[in-house]
Amino acid sequence: MRIGDLQTPALLVDAGAFEHNLATMAEALPGARLRPHVKAHKTTALAARQAAHGHRTFTCATIREVEGMAAAGLGDDLLLANEVLDASRLGRLDARVTVAVDSPETVEAASRGGVKEVLVDVNVGLPRCGIAPEKAGELAELARSRGLQVRGVMGYEGHVVGLPDRALRTELVSEAMALLLQAHADVGGEVISAGGTGTYDLNTWANEIQAGSYALMDTAYGKLELPFQQAVYVLATVISASPGGYVVADCGLKALGMDHGKPDLEGGGQVLIVSDEHLTVVPANPYRVGERVRVIPAHVDPTVAYHQRMHLVRGDEVLESWEVDLRGW
Amino acid sequence: MRIGDLQTPALLVDAGAFEHNLATMAEALPGARLRPHVKAHKTTALAARQAAHGHRTFTCATIREVEGMAAAGLGDDLLLANEVLDASRLGRLDARVTVAVDSPETVEAASRGGVKEVLVDVNVGLPRCGIAPEKAGELAELARSRGLQVRGVMGYEGHVVGLPDRALRTELVSEAMALLLQAHADVGGEVISAGGTGTYDLNTWANEIQAGSYALMDTAYGKLELPFQQAVYVLATVISASPGGYVVADCGLKALGMDHGKPDLEGGGQVLIVSDEHLTVVPANPYRVGERVRVIPAHVDPTVAYHQRMHLVRGDEVLESWEVDLRGW
Repeated sequence: MRIGDLQTPALLVDAGAFEHNLATMAEALPGARLRPHVKAHKTTALAARQAAHGHRTFTCATIREVEGMAAAGLGDDLLLANEVLDASRLGRLDARVTVAVDSPETVEAASRGGVKEVLVDVNVGLPRCGIAPEKAGELAELARSRGLQVRGVMGYEGHVVGLPDRALRTELVSEAMALLLQAHADVGGEVISAGGTGTYDLNTWANEIQAGSYALMDTAYGKLELPFQQAVYVLATVISASPGGYVVADCGLKALGMDHGKPDLEGGGQVLIVSDEHLTVVPANPYRVGERVRVIPAHVDPTVAYHQRMHLVRGDEVLESWEVDLRGW
Repeated sequence: MRIGDLQTPALLVDAGAFEHNLATMAEALPGARLRPHVKAHKTTALAARQAAHGHRTFTCATIREVEGMAAAGLGDDLLLANEVLDASRLGRLDARVTVAVDSPETVEAASRGGVKEVLVDVNVGLPRCGIAPEKAGELAELARSRGLQVRGVMGYEGHVVGLPDRALRTELVSEAMALLLQAHADVGGEVISAGGTGTYDLNTWANEIQAGSYALMDTAYGKLELPFQQAVYVLATVISASPGGYVVADCGLKALGMDHGKPDLEGGGQVLIVSDEHLTVVPANPYRVGERVRVIPAHVDPTVAYHQRMHLVRGDEVLESWEVDLRGW
């Protein structure tokens, strides 16, 4: 199949950039040093490629992601790095499942749902989930008293991973991880899980890194001078052209996560408007109606979540089409 | 089934507000005066409710939406209010299908694809699709020369529909529709199609209005003092609570369209951060871990497109669950 045969909008993964990203990361963080986060791609076929690069432990953000990974035979060691109040679907899985806990309620839910292992989720500065570091030991005790195996701690420095200044990023990771290590001293266990694509090589305190975006990348992470290449694009067709100089392509708000702002156009140009199914752009070079353009998402995770499948491509050839099978909850 | 049995995040439709919206619109624009736009809800079961209120003509934004509506038996008169370069899937449908054209290329595509009827899409001020008004007659001639039936014109005043000042909105609709009527004088045909939820009662020049958001509404349209009520919510569970005063709910960037900004929390409060699967909020009233909250989307269309189903609810009861079956392309 050729790219020209695809219905647009279509999610493309450039095979060369993708393989480069997986190989680069596997060299920096081999095996279980990386616990790839599947939320960025939501695709078990892609996770299988990460496994082929030596990573057999994975991070998930939803129960559905854990279920799908288990069903795909990738359930050696799945961490749900998120809190849940009903863990019964997790407890039924034929896989090794560890869930994050940060409160007595989530400990009780894990116990009641039949999950055997937990990590204590520690707040390291991001105003989101996670218990205060000084309370982590107490929660670990509660979990053990409920028969749960406490494998260690996790704490995501999400307030830091996107900072453009590398020196500042390093300093703030250090501060965040001091909090996580303080909690770990009280909690115990083998696992210290943290990090993301923006801190994968700076976070030397965690013993596993939860990076996910590195595989596909986006324009936000593209600004951080990381060694990963842009691998994902939304392919669109120019459906209208104005004598005024702008053209309209058939991809819009339902094909692109918009929280990080407008996407970029490969080849350059200015994106004027993103509507439900349209992108109005003033391209650097003129396009005719019927031509194809490639759009680079500003944020990979919510972009992928809109698409039913992604297509691995090399040049003009579609090598494989993968179902984005971990969508939903 | 009760709401408490739903897995979160879940898309809820309040039956009372929804019925109010459909009845209010059907009274203002009965029958074919409204051509409901399905892109706002992407759900044939919901479109069937609109049909029960007397509307048998529908507007679509994608080929998939047209196909799904035809398959659901709602194909009396489907307008694809968008340009396509490959109309072959449309030409195969057992339904009355009209497609928008704004260039010789899209006319050729309609003809080649076996579509029989077209509307000339006219640019009335929004920098998106649509031919210049003075060129519309010439394009209609081209279409007729290719054996296509030209039913009339359409022109969406999308640059106007969201303006908060009603007087200004009225003035600019008038200007936009003057352009559409100018084009219509050259094109001919019975249909003058335009408008949206924000101009449904102001646009007295078009003879059919393409409103869609009115059925479910969002916080953006909620600011316009329209007679429609907020009917759609994302139900979420509080999964974490900080002594600092914020709580975290399990709905995020993959459950909410973000192009119009952050969502609101029913009951009030400040949304601090929207992450992939999390909403960090300082609620007006405290919530405990495990409680449910309702989140009001800023933009309904790209919110619905993330969800596999929506649930029609009254009080605590789930009346029906509808598949959001028009997603994708």
